[in-house]
This record gives sequence, structure tokens and C-alpha cells, in this order.
Amino acid sequence: MIPTLAPLPSRLPDSVPFVGPETLERQRGASFAARLGANENGFGPSPRAVAAIQAAAAEVWKYGDPTSHDLRAAIAVHCGVTPDHVVVGEGIDGLLGLAVRLMVGEGAKVVTSEGGYPTFDFHVAGFGGTLVRVPYAGDRQDPAALVARAAQTGARMVYLCNPDNPMGGWHAPEAIEAAVAALPPDILLILDEAYAEFAPALPRIDPDDPRILRMRTFSKAYAMAGARIGWAIGAPAVIRAFDRVRNHFGVNRIAQAGALAALGDRAHLAGAVARVVAARDRIAAIARDNGLSALPSATNFVAVDCGGDGDLARAVLAGLAERGVFVRMPWVAPQNRCIRISCGPDAELDALAAALPDALAAARR
Amino acid sequence: MIPTLAPLPSRLPDSVPFVGPETLERQRGASFAARLGANENGFGPSPRAVAAIQAAAAEVWKYGDPTSHDLRAAIAVHCGVTPDHVVVGEGIDGLLGLAVRLMVGEGAKVVTSEGGYPTFDFHVAGFGGTLVRVPYAGDRQDPAALVARAAQTGARMVYLCNPDNPMGGWHAPEAIEAAVAALPPDILLILDEAYAEFAPALPRIDPDDPRILRMRTFSKAYAMAGARIGWAIGAPAVIRAFDRVRNHFGVNRIAQAGALAALGDRAHLAGAVARVVAARDRIAAIARDNGLSALPSATNFVAVDCGGDGDLARAVLAGLAERGVFVRMPWVAPQNRCIRISCGPDAELDALAAALPDALAAARR
Repeated sequence: MIPTLAPLPSRLPDSVPFVGPETLERQRGASFAARLGANENGFGPSPRAVAAIQAAAAEVWKYGDPTSHDLRAAIAVHCGVTPDHVVVGEGIDGLLGLAVRLMVGEGAKVVTSEGGYPTFDFHVAGFGGTLVRVPYAGDRQDPAALVARAAQTGARMVYLCNPDNPMGGWHAPEAIEAAVAALPPDILLILDEAYAEFAPALPRIDPDDPRILRMRTFSKAYAMAGARIGWAIGAPAVIRAFDRVRNHFGVNRIAQAGALAALGDRAHLAGAVARVVAARDRIAAIARDNGLSALPSATNFVAVDCGGDGDLARAVLAGLAERGVFVRMPWVAPQNRCIRISCGPDAELDALAAALPDALAAARR
Repeated sequence: MIPTLAPLPSRLPDSVPFVGPETLERQRGASFAARLGANENGFGPSPRAVAAIQAAAAEVWKYGDPTSHDLRAAIAVHCGVTPDHVVVGEGIDGLLGLAVRLMVGEGAKVVTSEGGYPTFDFHVAGFGGTLVRVPYAGDRQDPAALVARAAQTGARMVYLCNPDNPMGGWHAPEAIEAAVAALPPDILLILDEAYAEFAPALPRIDPDDPRILRMRTFSKAYAMAGARIGWAIGAPAVIRAFDRVRNHFGVNRIAQAGALAALGDRAHLAGAVARVVAARDRIAAIARDNGLSALPSATNFVAVDCGGDGDLARAVLAGLAERGVFVRMPWVAPQNRCIRISCGPDAELDALAAALPDALAAARR
């Protein structure tokens, strides 16, 4: 027997948004030769970040600064805002959970895309919100339709990921800015910009606009997913509200030190983006070599159209996994005709190139 | 204007359970010579943990294993349970928040001690629970009274910290075991054992008992507070329920690696405990030298009775801070006659010994 849970969690499933590659490796009894499924950045973090982490190791007996003072100051300079516009949290995943908890009471409506970020959906369900889903339009999330649906349904919150995960596309700044202009006053737009550093351009948004929270991370371009650190930018009154619910000592000290160093290494970031661009081209070439087409990407991954339905793509994914290549795929039609391949170093893309023909052939049988 | 918050957070204060020492240092414009306020372990982590953290730095581009598989396996061996009895989280603070979220709906009663752990109270308020407070008895939390009050009030959860924070005392295993025996079937006892490694003995509790969650941490004896990692032991069905609400990728990869190495270094742990015992004796001697008395401690800190009321102790604390010594103190009477001094290396205790006479004299004026 288990003690009676509170009403809300008693109705939740024993849910896991994503299975990690370590679990898959244990199931297959062997490591992956290519870890290209979680949009991690295998080109690795700045050597300065690595050095800062290593230097912080002996000081790990100290709690991290609960205000992330120094990092917030550096982020503020980097983003052209004040520290009062910035909250640092345990990755975008953690910040999304806090934002949902702040805004979404039981039964409140939240608009997202059909096939959008499962972890966001997990948080909305976890706090009793009701998800309203808007279809993708042309393999991209549809900013105008998302905002329109939020207004129609009286939603409390609307989620938009730009550049897009899981498809990789992006919207020009004007499209996002138009959606923001159409947003009613009392709806919070979560603009998930996890892949911002790979975008050709970003929208201009007034940081004092209380309707918008922009989410950014050290997990992708900065290659520090394992450190669990990200930030949100919003109006100071909205940012301050996070203090009501966040785990104040939750951001680890080592991550704060590493992130601060990473933010200071602009040259490494530029190099990382260049390596990602080259890897995107190579993934597209591998796709072409196999008669497949790659979707345009403004992220550190490429959606490759397997040329069939979700069952075919799932079979390709399974075939790749059998052959030591970990990738993931979108979870609704028609986007699930694709597999999603993260950019990585040449050795991992070699493994992809070697495995894909057989995986495809097996999937088509 | 701020967007309308959900009903529950809209009623919460802009609360901060603890101000961190970095904030106090910025306010005073100088670093502390002695950081003895947060029950951190200034003797430092195992060199093996430091080496594991440093080795993990270059792999920080990978997300941590969301199941903490290897660490849970090691903890299970260490604690004589199975991995299904263990959930790893972002420190006890994070695990307390999840446990409250799982068990405490709005208006549900939660029993704790008057002057108990403020972060636990923060979580209970944050999920809409109603706190019922039981007085300390003889400078210790009162297990029998806590359980009795939980039964009387129909509480969903009762919190007990043993060894005790902020006073440092402990209960013999029989007292905890008797409280467990008296616990009604559908109330969850949170047994916060953050200081377990410093206790002379721990209670025997059936790990399959669904009424109990034992919380443990790498922050204290293992000196890894800045890594943000701890664990809870409970019946597998209760542990599984955490998957409904936890941030699955929230435990950072570096902490997992460091914790695994720390757990394997039993000699370092034994040395750390011995150093803490010696430091406790030295703090007691410093107290005596100043005409004050130290309370018995089974933790890595010592409550020192300043011989007056809360105002006097607050003045001593302020005087120490002015002189570069960071300590904290209990927050309700009569425990607030004390200041709480963490064990630390000789240089920090030297700073305490140097500052205390003047701080006391100034406080008494």
C-alpha cells in the first residue's frame, strides 16, 4: 500500500518524458558509438568552462550562491538587460516547471503545439493544467495560430519554441514580433530559445514586457547539458515571482562557475556554432547519399525525412540504435516521418554514415 | 503590471528561506574570514570525489543519467536496500519539495516543529499545506509529540529531523522507532537524516514501510553541498511516485560522478567525521573560554547558548559577522538564545575564537 497522494498527483501517470541514452545502452548491453539523440553538443564546452569546473571542484563543500549574483550580472550584460530581468535555474526544464507552477492553476488552459516539447507538457499536466494543441504549419510551430488560440480559449500561458525543436526550423524575427504584438495582456508567452545561438537572427522583445518569458540555456551551444543551468529573461516583477516557488539553493555551484566562464569565451561559442553548421551540412549530405532529404535547420540538429510514415521512421531509428547510433524522432504525424539527428564530431557522423544504409534497408523490408 | 498568477502562488509571499553568505559578503563589502553558518563541511570532499568531478568536467556536454542508475545502485548497497528503494534528487531541499508536492494538497495539514527547518515550511506553504507546529522539548524535536499531533489532526505528513537541526541534539534509535510504531497507516513521516553520518546510532526502519521516507545528503559529511545531490529511501511504490513530478534530467552529471566516488571513499568519510568531532570539542572550548555553554551535538555544528534571549544572540551574531565570522541561529524562543556554529578547519575556528570576546562584549553593551 502507498500513502494517499494529494488529489492532483494521484491522477498523474507514472510518466517519464524521455528515456535517457544510458538506459538504452544498458538495455542493449553495449555503448552507443554515436550519441546523437538528445541535441547535446558533442563538440564540447569551452576549455575555460572546463577549467572553471575543475577549479570549483575543491570548493564544492560550499553551497552555490542562491542568487546566482555574478552569473546573473554577466547574463544581463550579455543580453542587454539588468540582473533584475534574469532568473537562473536548473536548466530550461526546471524553469519551465516553475513558470507553469506560477501561472497555471488546476484546469487552466495552456496552448502549445501538437508534437511540442514533451517536458513542457509533463509540467502542465503535473500542475493540473489543460493542454490545448495547435498543429504545426509547414513543419514549424505556428506563432500566429498559437497566440490566436490562446486568446480564443482564455489560456493562461502559450508555449513557442523558436528555433524549433524537434524539427529544426526557425521563424524570422518579424513573425515572432507579430505574434507578440497580437498577444492579449494577461497571457504569458513562454518563448523557448534553447537553440537561440544557432539562429540567424532573434526577435526584438521589450524585456519589460510582462507577457513574455524568454528561456535560454547553457545546455546546447555552450555544451553544458550535464551542468543543469539555464536562465529566463522577463519583466522584473515576473522574475521576482520565481522567488516564491524556486528551490533557492538549487543551482549547483560548479554549474554557476562553469557557466560564467563559458559566457566569457565568445570565441569558443563562435567556433562551436561554426562546427555545428558544418555538421548540419554533413548530416544533410549523408541523408542525400541515402536518397533522403534533410529539413533546413537553425539548431544543432537536423530532421531527416525518411520518406514514409511514423512506422518507417521508427524502424529506421530502431535500426540505427541496433547499429550503435542513438537518435530520436518527433512523436506526432506528419512530423514523425522524420528522425532527428544531433550534430556531433566527425567520428560520430562517420558511425551514422556507416549505419544508415543498413538501417534503412532493414526498415524498408 | 504582472500577469495574474495561479491562485496558490498569488497568495505566497516573496519569500527567501535563507540569505546566502555571498549576499552578506556583498552587503558588508568584504569576505568572511570564517564561513561557519550554513553547516557546510569546510574540511572538504574526498580527493576521489574532487578527481571524479574534474574528470567529468569534459563530459559535461552530456545530460546526466535521468535514472541516476549507477549512483542508486551504490547507495542501495551502502544502505542495505534495493535501487527501487532509492530516489536521487537535487539535495534534500529538492526532495522535500517533491515529497510535499506528492502528498500535500491545498489545505492538508502538515506537522513539524516550532522552529523547524524553514525550507520545509517554505515547500509546505508553496503547495498550499497548513503547518501545525509542535514545540521543542528540551532543545530537541519531540518524536512522540509530533506523531501524536499528526494523528490527532489528520495530517498527511509529519517532519522530523534527527540528528536535530538547528540545535544539534539527537534521539537514540529507540525513540525514533517508538514514534514510527505509533504512526498511523496513512501519514507519511519525513525523517530528515541530513546529519546521519555524525550520529552515534541510527534507528532501524523497514525500508518497505510505506509510511516513512528517510532523506540523506552528500551536502554534509560528504562535503558536497555545492553539487546539489541527495537521496531518499522509501517503499518502492512511494519512490516510484516521484517519477510523476520530478524533473527527470534535473540531477547534474558532475554531481552524480562526484557522489559515486565520494560514497566509495569510506576512509575519507571516517576522517571527516573525526575532524568534525574534534572541531565540536574546540567550539565547546571556545564557548567555555567566553563563559558560554555549548549544547551536545551529533551533527557538524554546535549550538552555543549566549546566556540571554534572542535579542542578545542576534547581537552576538551581528557582532561576529562584523568581525568576519558568518554563523546563523535558531529562529524561535527559547532556542534562539543560541547561535549555531558549523564545524570547520582550525583557521576558521581561530577567527571565531578571536572575534567572539569582542562580539560578546559589544552585544552585552
